[in-house]
Amino acid sequence: MKITTAERDGVYKTIYNRRDIRGEFLPDPVSDEVLERILNAAHHAPSVGFMQPWDFVVVRNQTVKQQIKNAFEVAHKEAAEMFDEEQREQYRSFKLEGIMEAPIGITVTCDRRRTGDVVIGRTANKEMDLYSSVCAVQNLWLAARAENLGVGWVSIIHHRTLKEILGIPKFVVPIAYLCIGHISHFHEKPELEKAGWLPRLPIEELIHHDRW
Amino acid sequence: MKITTAERDGVYKTIYNRRDIRGEFLPDPVSDEVLERILNAAHHAPSVGFMQPWDFVVVRNQTVKQQIKNAFEVAHKEAAEMFDEEQREQYRSFKLEGIMEAPIGITVTCDRRRTGDVVIGRTANKEMDLYSSVCAVQNLWLAARAENLGVGWVSIIHHRTLKEILGIPKFVVPIAYLCIGHISHFHEKPELEKAGWLPRLPIEELIHHDRW
Repeated sequence: MKITTAERDGVYKTIYNRRDIRGEFLPDPVSDEVLERILNAAHHAPSVGFMQPWDFVVVRNQTVKQQIKNAFEVAHKEAAEMFDEEQREQYRSFKLEGIMEAPIGITVTCDRRRTGDVVIGRTANKEMDLYSSVCAVQNLWLAARAENLGVGWVSIIHHRTLKEILGIPKFVVPIAYLCIGHISHFHEKPELEKAGWLPRLPIEELIHHDRW
Repeated sequence: MKITTAERDGVYKTIYNRRDIRGEFLPDPVSDEVLERILNAAHHAPSVGFMQPWDFVVVRNQTVKQQIKNAFEVAHKEAAEMFDEEQREQYRSFKLEGIMEAPIGITVTCDRRRTGDVVIGRTANKEMDLYSSVCAVQNLWLAARAENLGVGWVSIIHHRTLKEILGIPKFVVPIAYLCIGHISHFHEKPELEKAGWLPRLPIEELIHHDRW
């Protein structure tokens, strides 16, 4: 099936205008239809040996969200202590999650035992199934952006705590907690770039030919 | 910036028609312009703390490709031994890579020391930088699909061998070796699904509400 130039440009527009959203969530509900579309896009990510190791825990309950928010607070406090004094103040000033504001949270996981012990393509590199679930996250993120929804990946939370809160089974690994919702606006640039925390790297410096 | 319904549909069409390509590569060269576009799409993936941990080693040299192909053969032989006898024959019958046929190989890596030891968002979960590089892979894959190029992820190769072949530095981790090129056609369904190796899972079984 051929992708047209206009469709291709839509893909690039979506990729370049995707942002990690923390402070711009609106309370407006996300329709079931749209939620279904973005989950189905995630489910059509590439997966090693076609194992489809992902699950999706959709969180709307305010009590559960509050537990996740509390777990974020713990990890966030620990994190602040790791930065040098000069960076610590700026770190604390950043809004790094929208757990309570976003109408939906989605935990994407990886079931390491799905389809058995031996998986095509996971024989030499055991982490391949985790990477498949990350591909599902990125598909979901781009689909959500294409629906003009914001997504924020909250990684400042201990995954073992997230596992406990959500009752995730032993051999299933949390990959991402995503906040999802309609938003007031998308920032033109990544917020950490805008704040002068780090610059966008020149791509020429990242490309090597035939050898590093 | 608003994504229109037509652009959104282009994103979904790209997601649903993306395949892992092994046997359909054509020798036609990929233009530098297109290569630049797909690498730039990868460079605009989300990254934890905006660390942009990725590098891209673009392989066109036939001798280097042959070394990578040899490394695949080693890992592929080891892998076949891991399957039950009944699955082994079918495993051996699959074409699982297009290393020599694809005009371009790209190794996507993760520099774990980029931007220093303490990275926003990598404090509670150390693997977050690896996941950022996987997001770059998925952006590249979708951009390539939108350009009607095929991509195949070769994971049946020991990453330590790939590191040696390409001279990748100590603290840099290979994430993916991708074969890229024009192709004769895209399969309608994933090949492992078509071959009856594994079925597509019903998505309803993968969605949980508020708790697993």
